[in-house]
Amino acid sequence: MLVLALAMTNRALASDPDILSDFIVPTTNITKVDGTFFTYTGFRGLFDGLPKTFKVTKAALTEFPALDGQSVSYAVLQFPANGGVNPPHTHPRSAELLFLVAGSLDVGFVDTKNVLYTQKLQVGDIFVFPKGLVHYQYNSQPDMSAIAVSAFGSANAGTVSVPLSVFATGIDDEILAKSFKTNVHTIKKIKAGLAPQK
Amino acid sequence: MLVLALAMTNRALASDPDILSDFIVPTTNITKVDGTFFTYTGFRGLFDGLPKTFKVTKAALTEFPALDGQSVSYAVLQFPANGGVNPPHTHPRSAELLFLVAGSLDVGFVDTKNVLYTQKLQVGDIFVFPKGLVHYQYNSQPDMSAIAVSAFGSANAGTVSVPLSVFATGIDDEILAKSFKTNVHTIKKIKAGLAPQK
Amino acid sequence: MLVLALAMTNRALASDPDILSDFIVPTTNITKVDGTFFTYTGFRGLFDGLPKTFKVTKAALTEFPALDGQSVSYAVLQFPANGGVNPPHTHPRSAELLFLVAGSLDVGFVDTKNVLYTQKLQVGDIFVFPKGLVHYQYNSQPDMSAIAVSAFGSANAGTVSVPLSVFATGIDDEILAKSFKTNVHTIKKIKAGLAPQK
Amino acid sequence: MLVLALAMTNRALASDPDILSDFIVPTTNITKVDGTFFTYTGFRGLFDGLPKTFKVTKAALTEFPALDGQSVSYAVLQFPANGGVNPPHTHPRSAELLFLVAGSLDVGFVDTKNVLYTQKLQVGDIFVFPKGLVHYQYNSQPDMSAIAVSAFGSANAGTVSVPLSVFATGIDDEILAKSFKTNVHTIKKIKAGLAPQK
Amino acid sequence: MLVLALAMTNRALASDPDILSDFIVPTTNITKVDGTFFTYTGFRGLFDGLPKTFKVTKAALTEFPALDGQSVSYAVLQFPANGGVNPPHTHPRSAELLFLVAGSLDVGFVDTKNVLYTQKLQVGDIFVFPKGLVHYQYNSQPDMSAIAVSAFGSANAGTVSVPLSVFATGIDDEILAKSFKTNVHTIKKIKAGLAPQK
Amino acid sequence: MLVLALAMTNRALASDPDILSDFIVPTTNITKVDGTFFTYTGFRGLFDGLPKTFKVTKAALTEFPALDGQSVSYAVLQFPANGGVNPPHTHPRSAELLFLVAGSLDVGFVDTKNVLYTQKLQVGDIFVFPKGLVHYQYNSQPDMSAIAVSAFGSANAGTVSVPLSVFATGIDDEILAKSFKTNVHTIKKIKAGLAPQK
Repeated sequence: MLVLALAMTNRALASDPDILSDFIVPTTNITKVDGTFFTYTGFRGLFDGLPKTFKVTKAALTEFPALDGQSVSYAVLQFPANGGVNPPHTHPRSAELLFLVAGSLDVGFVDTKNVLYTQKLQVGDIFVFPKGLVHYQYNSQPDMSAIAVSAFGSANAGTVSVPLSVFATGIDDEILAKSFKTNVHTIKKIKAGLAPQK
Repeated sequence: MLVLALAMTNRALASDPDILSDFIVPTTNITKVDGTFFTYTGFRGLFDGLPKTFKVTKAALTEFPALDGQSVSYAVLQFPANGGVNPPHTHPRSAELLFLVAGSLDVGFVDTKNVLYTQKLQVGDIFVFPKGLVHYQYNSQPDMSAIAVSAFGSANAGTVSVPLSVFATGIDDEILAKSFKTNVHTIKKIKAGLAPQK
Repeated sequence: MLVLALAMTNRALASDPDILSDFIVPTTNITKVDGTFFTYTGFRGLFDGLPKTFKVTKAALTEFPALDGQSVSYAVLQFPANGGVNPPHTHPRSAELLFLVAGSLDVGFVDTKNVLYTQKLQVGDIFVFPKGLVHYQYNSQPDMSAIAVSAFGSANAGTVSVPLSVFATGIDDEILAKSFKTNVHTIKKIKAGLAPQK
Repeated sequence: MLVLALAMTNRALASDPDILSDFIVPTTNITKVDGTFFTYTGFRGLFDGLPKTFKVTKAALTEFPALDGQSVSYAVLQFPANGGVNPPHTHPRSAELLFLVAGSLDVGFVDTKNVLYTQKLQVGDIFVFPKGLVHYQYNSQPDMSAIAVSAFGSANAGTVSVPLSVFATGIDDEILAKSFKTNVHTIKKIKAGLAPQK
Repeated sequence: MLVLALAMTNRALASDPDILSDFIVPTTNITKVDGTFFTYTGFRGLFDGLPKTFKVTKAALTEFPALDGQSVSYAVLQFPANGGVNPPHTHPRSAELLFLVAGSLDVGFVDTKNVLYTQKLQVGDIFVFPKGLVHYQYNSQPDMSAIAVSAFGSANAGTVSVPLSVFATGIDDEILAKSFKTNVHTIKKIKAGLAPQK
Repeated sequence: MLVLALAMTNRALASDPDILSDFIVPTTNITKVDGTFFTYTGFRGLFDGLPKTFKVTKAALTEFPALDGQSVSYAVLQFPANGGVNPPHTHPRSAELLFLVAGSLDVGFVDTKNVLYTQKLQVGDIFVFPKGLVHYQYNSQPDMSAIAVSAFGSANAGTVSVPLSVFATGIDDEILAKSFKTNVHTIKKIKAGLAPQK
């Protein structure tokens, strides 16, 4: 039985199709391909300060074109103390591998059988959010901010924010009321809270 | 320019990795592989009656093991008149191709830039919900039920129901209140509405 | 043993590579991307009448460009009574999942070990034709036509018709005679029957 | 335009998913993994003699288990003079790259638009048969045999022989007669020719 | 031209095949699947001390089984001051996305046309080493150590160390001398330097 | 146990994503697509003579554009007697399946655990070099040259030559000296031997 289990660990469970070249250079705006093309400097200083609300900074296909075809990207997540939250969301094109580099975080995800998996992370912990599932991160510490680095196995993992996607894009109130088994009044209230401030 | 555009249409944009055999037979519970192994009868009669609430019936990997490795599956969706709704949800492992075979449906999906795309479908229409995005279907007709067949490009597309995943799995009230920019009282009310009836 | 079999059911046996965007918009002829771009209306009315000979109507990459990158497509198959036949053919880029919505059908496919699998389908039945294998559908009912919806796990499954591909494209008579272990006269006769009527 | 065309040549058009290990060792019958596990000797002597009828010798997953997960395999094709033929067939899981090492061959394939592409190959020529399409090879030389090596981009490309798959597996005569627009008598004659000799 | 370039950015250039389940649980040694199964604690404290020689600490398939099927993994790289080096190596199954979190690094990779791309990174910089290519990292700072986090788009990227793979596995001296266009004496000297200390 | 092992042999371990068309035609320089487009003649005569040093001749994406999207390519390797060597190298995008058609060869590869696998091949033998690993071939026969045909499961496998990639691209002497645990003098000597002759 042990032999079999080991053999199975060797098998092809998920992997990345190759591109047919070493790397891909965009057809526009690139005058010279040297070391700087493969370098992204937009993360400099991210560990120094801290924004007042939760903030994501990405190094993905749009920000860093050299990632095209390389099946990997990064984001830095900054959580202020006392309730900084990355609301429930999914990444349609990749799992997320979060590495907590400062502070503490309460994290969780829900699988397709509606089972919730939660964990309280401390500095240095890694947590994997499986591909396409709803998940969140939350800083419950009263006076300590948190910073995490997240890796994705796609150059463009994408993000579907549940609050914004569902309540801030104009889906009909009646449809949402029936979907969430509540009334139109409650839907309108939630929509108002999530609407952009004027 | 036309030549180029045509050439690009030919290119490899999404496709299915092969299995290394014609088909896959489960290692248990199969005594004989003949035509019945490749047949699923669980959809018989689905077009005849109609349930009182929205109902999904699947023919996917669990129900129909011969789909293993074939990258395709089905679901039949039945919507009662006057508000039958398939609440906002995602399929983490496939796009959905809905074919409306009876009635009328209001459908919509939201992309990762939070743009809502909606359409009112009539009988015979097909609508594609791209992979991993939040979408819904709704029967607004006062006295006509609706039936749709949906195809998926995976044997196990999976479903993440937004209402159940977010509000019926025990995610902390405080985290949800902050995420949806509302108060704990509202979160509790929505949770109560979605809780299983005793 | 049971535990192991269940674990294997969870494993990665066939799936679809993602695209790196939510959807793909063609570079030509699209002025606005809204709900209608994701809607295909070419199937309207298909269930109402019936052609005199077997007929396939596709909703694939060519007819419905929004399918690009979504790994799924449809076809509707209409079989007149008393011998309507979809001749032996293969789909090089996908399995076919046939859903019989009216009538009855005799179906079959042959695997790469030359084993024939057949089944008589009744309304509501689903049958999976594994990827790349020769298969056919036949309506033997004397006075009842049949209609099926087929789903494919590729936006462009493609079709290789055995009669047309082999006997109506100009392959040399001598080569075909030797291949089918018959004489040139028989090959010429079959070719004549399959040639387009003038 | 040149820049653009070059850039497109670099892009990801078809490639192989990785396994998650260097190689895969079968769970049975392997006592030691050394250089001989990665060696296949079944092709020794194939270039020396020549069989009386067309013959394929494979080095694929079944014969050479070390190919598991490596996405490549071989076959040697031997054609006697004066009509040696590899009848119309498809490979459901790979393109075929034929390298003619002796003699001359008439080859051809038919695409999904029923266009026939033919070529007369001389020694040293390579010909690619695209994935999943019907193709054949034929030795029309009166007194020179031919030998080819074929490579496949799958460890188990599989073969669907049109004559055997369609006419030697028991598909109903009536269905075949209607499919090939001929009569049952002709179908029976072809079946008889292809039936195994007693 | 701009329109075309944008459209190409949307296309499928590299992505990850899905698994057919939310996640994969090993068949052995797992008694309960809860939040801790998705957590890896082996990186705790890595930023605090510093080893005397270059050191890699991995969080990949072997160390963190929950990564199976999720197509992503991490490594932490620690470089002592004054010459800490990660010698030339390749990762056969993924690109590497290095994020420099402390110190400074000289990095470089060589493409398949033997062009060397180098860069001097400062804290906060990201550098992508394309899949399968030879690359190195070097800390030339006289008195400042360096720490980097690297993400991979595979749960098991693998590492091929050039010095160890070529000079410490017993490849014949004569073959290496001819390959490197030097003499056996030089090969023996390099081998001796790389041999494990007794 | 036997049943289980057989079932696993059937499973999807490595395969090629399809393109969405039968084949791909370059957007430039092709005036007519007929049989010659699918034919490559650059290997003619390769078996007749023999170069004085080791030589590789490729039939890959660059030389044979019809391979685009077909996931397969060839190379012919010619080894002069008495030390003809293909130095340690990797192919980042494919395994290599070597078929020895003349002479004898000493071959070897090193896996990611730094285990060396070697074999002495005789005419007719096939050897598989797994994807991405360092490998070499060597003709130790004093007076017999060797010829091999190698197949790759990618249209553009790519080659990373260890001697050239590491010692002939300008990587800093100090970095290499530290990496190979030798001195700068030895590095300079090896670099000199590998530098292009003037």
